[in-house]
Amino acid sequence: MRQAIGQLTFRTSGRGLKEITSEIATWLAAQQVNTGLITIFCRHTSASLLIQENADPAVRADLEAYFARIAPEAPGQYAHEDEGPDDMPGHLRAALTQTHLSIPVVSGKMALGTWQGIYLFEHRRKPHHREILLHLIGE
Amino acid sequence: MRQAIGQLTFRTSGRGLKEITSEIATWLAAQQVNTGLITIFCRHTSASLLIQENADPAVRADLEAYFARIAPEAPGQYAHEDEGPDDMPGHLRAALTQTHLSIPVVSGKMALGTWQGIYLFEHRRKPHHREILLHLIGE
Amino acid sequence: MRQAIGQLTFRTSGRGLKEITSEIATWLAAQQVNTGLITIFCRHTSASLLIQENADPAVRADLEAYFARIAPEAPGQYAHEDEGPDDMPGHLRAALTQTHLSIPVVSGKMALGTWQGIYLFEHRRKPHHREILLHLIGE
Repeated sequence: MRQAIGQLTFRTSGRGLKEITSEIATWLAAQQVNTGLITIFCRHTSASLLIQENADPAVRADLEAYFARIAPEAPGQYAHEDEGPDDMPGHLRAALTQTHLSIPVVSGKMALGTWQGIYLFEHRRKPHHREILLHLIGE
Repeated sequence: MRQAIGQLTFRTSGRGLKEITSEIATWLAAQQVNTGLITIFCRHTSASLLIQENADPAVRADLEAYFARIAPEAPGQYAHEDEGPDDMPGHLRAALTQTHLSIPVVSGKMALGTWQGIYLFEHRRKPHHREILLHLIGE
Repeated sequence: MRQAIGQLTFRTSGRGLKEITSEIATWLAAQQVNTGLITIFCRHTSASLLIQENADPAVRADLEAYFARIAPEAPGQYAHEDEGPDDMPGHLRAALTQTHLSIPVVSGKMALGTWQGIYLFEHRRKPHHREILLHLIGE
């Protein structure tokens, strides 16, 4: 049994879902582990992770519109406003989604379902650099 | 240290929570691992996983009614409607719950609390076959 | 490769977010593992886990107010009311947040981002003892 640690940095273009499946798959392939478990960890509290459908782009648009509805920007409504009106809604959206994902590795690949993609969910309006840490254990 | 991979397929009877604790416990017992970590991964984006109270069935009814309220079917409101009015709300409910669960294994069993059960949450109206992948590491 | 299991019990002071980062870090340091993966598991269905900003206390206040809005106490509205008006909203809040967290360990420490803290989210009004199970694998 062995393990590996990696880090990927992504530049987001502001609020929205950015697919990161292929970058993670490339890192995984380089580790040459056949069977194991990969854990993807987002080192931020105003960006998060999500596994979602990777086929119809309308799904991403609906997801973004939905989170804007259930965790809206609401100037004057939040106590935490120092970092701008988009920061506190970002923390709420991060709380409702995932900071980490663990996915089994089978035959050297993440065992995602046919329609599953891994997304980095940027919650801030402006572009950011986001650090994603990877842990792999297996053999 | 060793690991094991398994797959369970469940037939759901349409929208709702289906308890899958005992099927996972049976698979785990067959692996004869005393201490470790089991990861349960749902290979779908319109079904998800949840750990919830396994005692009063009213909890499940309330959970289902709640998700129907906060992520409702809303014909005409979502951009992604090709797969039916229940598909996009299913993606939203999956985003709000879990695609994977990791549970410590102690004395050969999942170390769930007394009232915790593992549920497969079917979000589509019609019955589906759902694939759940299991990864176990330990000794 | 080796693993360790631990348990921490926390006394909450009723509903709200309690930071537990330092207690987990202390346990981890005692295991003397340099690189690995730590999994934190909450053995309850009316308390849960969250990684959130650890700097401005207003973030915690906003998070608590938000969950009170989206999963409110609503006497007469839930089928499950035997355990009090705060129990079913607690299950809903647990469903929307996390029962477990997995965090990579690098150089003997959890690789949290600068602003990330680990919180135990108590959903019941009254103080409770809450059991948190820890699993560590690495070397």
